[in-house]
Amino acid sequence: MFIDRLIDNIKSKNNPTVVGLDPRIEYVPTFLKEEAFNKYGKNIKGAAEAIYEFNKRIIDAVWDLVPALKLQVAYYEMYGVPGMDVLGRTIKYGKEKGLLIICDGKRNDIGSTAEAYSSAFLGQTRIDEETCESVFDADALTVNPFLGYDGIKPFIDDCKNYGKGIFILVKTSNKSSGQFQDLLTVQGKSIYEVMAEYVSEWGKGLVGNYGYSNVGAVVGATYPNQAKILRSLMKQAYILVPGYGAQGGTAKDVVHSFNCDNLGAIVNASRSIMCAYKSETWKDKYNEEEFDMASREEVIRMKNDINNELGVRVCQ
Amino acid sequence: MFIDRLIDNIKSKNNPTVVGLDPRIEYVPTFLKEEAFNKYGKNIKGAAEAIYEFNKRIIDAVWDLVPALKLQVAYYEMYGVPGMDVLGRTIKYGKEKGLLIICDGKRNDIGSTAEAYSSAFLGQTRIDEETCESVFDADALTVNPFLGYDGIKPFIDDCKNYGKGIFILVKTSNKSSGQFQDLLTVQGKSIYEVMAEYVSEWGKGLVGNYGYSNVGAVVGATYPNQAKILRSLMKQAYILVPGYGAQGGTAKDVVHSFNCDNLGAIVNASRSIMCAYKSETWKDKYNEEEFDMASREEVIRMKNDINNELGVRVCQ
Repeated sequence: MFIDRLIDNIKSKNNPTVVGLDPRIEYVPTFLKEEAFNKYGKNIKGAAEAIYEFNKRIIDAVWDLVPALKLQVAYYEMYGVPGMDVLGRTIKYGKEKGLLIICDGKRNDIGSTAEAYSSAFLGQTRIDEETCESVFDADALTVNPFLGYDGIKPFIDDCKNYGKGIFILVKTSNKSSGQFQDLLTVQGKSIYEVMAEYVSEWGKGLVGNYGYSNVGAVVGATYPNQAKILRSLMKQAYILVPGYGAQGGTAKDVVHSFNCDNLGAIVNASRSIMCAYKSETWKDKYNEEEFDMASREEVIRMKNDINNELGVRVCQ
Repeated sequence: MFIDRLIDNIKSKNNPTVVGLDPRIEYVPTFLKEEAFNKYGKNIKGAAEAIYEFNKRIIDAVWDLVPALKLQVAYYEMYGVPGMDVLGRTIKYGKEKGLLIICDGKRNDIGSTAEAYSSAFLGQTRIDEETCESVFDADALTVNPFLGYDGIKPFIDDCKNYGKGIFILVKTSNKSSGQFQDLLTVQGKSIYEVMAEYVSEWGKGLVGNYGYSNVGAVVGATYPNQAKILRSLMKQAYILVPGYGAQGGTAKDVVHSFNCDNLGAIVNASRSIMCAYKSETWKDKYNEEEFDMASREEVIRMKNDINNELGVRVCQ
């Protein structure tokens, strides 16, 4: 199942961080862009193919270091049909390298429609009575719980049936996340606490060998105080932590999402890894052609940064 | 702009209902399926192409009756890349027939990523400094507000820049929608009321000639009592009402989402129209080959059902 394979990968690579491939064409080095534009045209097809080469080079440079990739679906959808094709091919390529694939789609709808999303990303699509097809076939998907349990259940069913995972939004990393998520209910709990209790409850039937559930949560690195509370409310949930790096979250912030076994969380960084070759830290050491080596160095730096903090913190 | 064009269409066709094209391959008549499977294979490509023919025939049969189509993105995504291609082609085909296209994607993310979704559906995708491309190019999109304003703002910006519209989830039609949306805050308001006040506020700068905003709301037909409250909290918002027909909402339920000018709401039905040819009402009159004529009759029945109720109700 997903969660056990994730933890196996985290342990064998000694790395609780994941690479986010959320690629805008603006991030792709000029030489790759020109190559693709010459071949496919200066259009969404050319952009998508440039992104595919960019993704592949980064995956080739980091696959031995990280347990998983997080692919933000929006950045593929914005390049239309060619973009969604590149999403599918990137998923396949990452899996061939032994990486687990988390699609960050924040999908949500009423039950019958959530089934369709779940078929697309986690389960299978029925063609006729005898024929089914795996479509994007990710290992896990992020989902938005605003519609309540019947919009989440189809994803949970596919977690059970296909050994997949989900991460439910609980407290997001953006500035205005508090506008609704922090609202206090008359019962004295905030919305994110109510969500966390449901995540904990919904995940009970899907706990793997390490004591963690295939039903995880998203808690942004930018809210360390909430992370402490949420960690204790959802002991068996794996927490996907966005917001490290470009969004401002630090190693000191993210360690609150880990349990004292130093498991229980994976930390994502996207822009700081994809655009490492443009950063103050790496741009003098690597030229544009070596962008992938800059990404590799940034992955190692991030891994050490977080592992160091996990090593020195006092966890109770 | 979107909202004025929508109201123009509603007035000229005297019809506040929209056809939802949320097509599962199971809904497609056998003869269309076999044709596509023979040509493209019994796979997601064959299924997607069968759905395209199905969609086209329904559009041909109803375009003169309805102001807009609502396309549920999940049912295209579940057929992968060929499905997304059919989504794009269905949008184009519907527009050629003069219909407005609402993509029901319930997209949501932090600001930078919401921008990418908005580029995909409402705005344009930048290829390089001089080149942009319209991707799916819908007229409006449904969005999920769980992340707060900075996740909504990019969509609103594209509404302004490209004359598009959004419908923000306020109270969804599913059974468990109350699990979070009905929670009462310490200020004495439910979450859906808080949402509604924001929808009203966010829409202020985008009001068209008829006094309605390009920032609308989704309120399910299955919650008529909440609809009454929400109608009065968001006077300028157009309300997209799902849940009529197969989900159990009736004409008596949906009229609460209209203002006393009998504008202010559009009612969607999907399964009851797409699968009309299988229904008790129409299956004896039309055979499978005439599925589109059954859809047309159901559209007329629904239009009359809701217009009659709007005509007899007492609105204060």
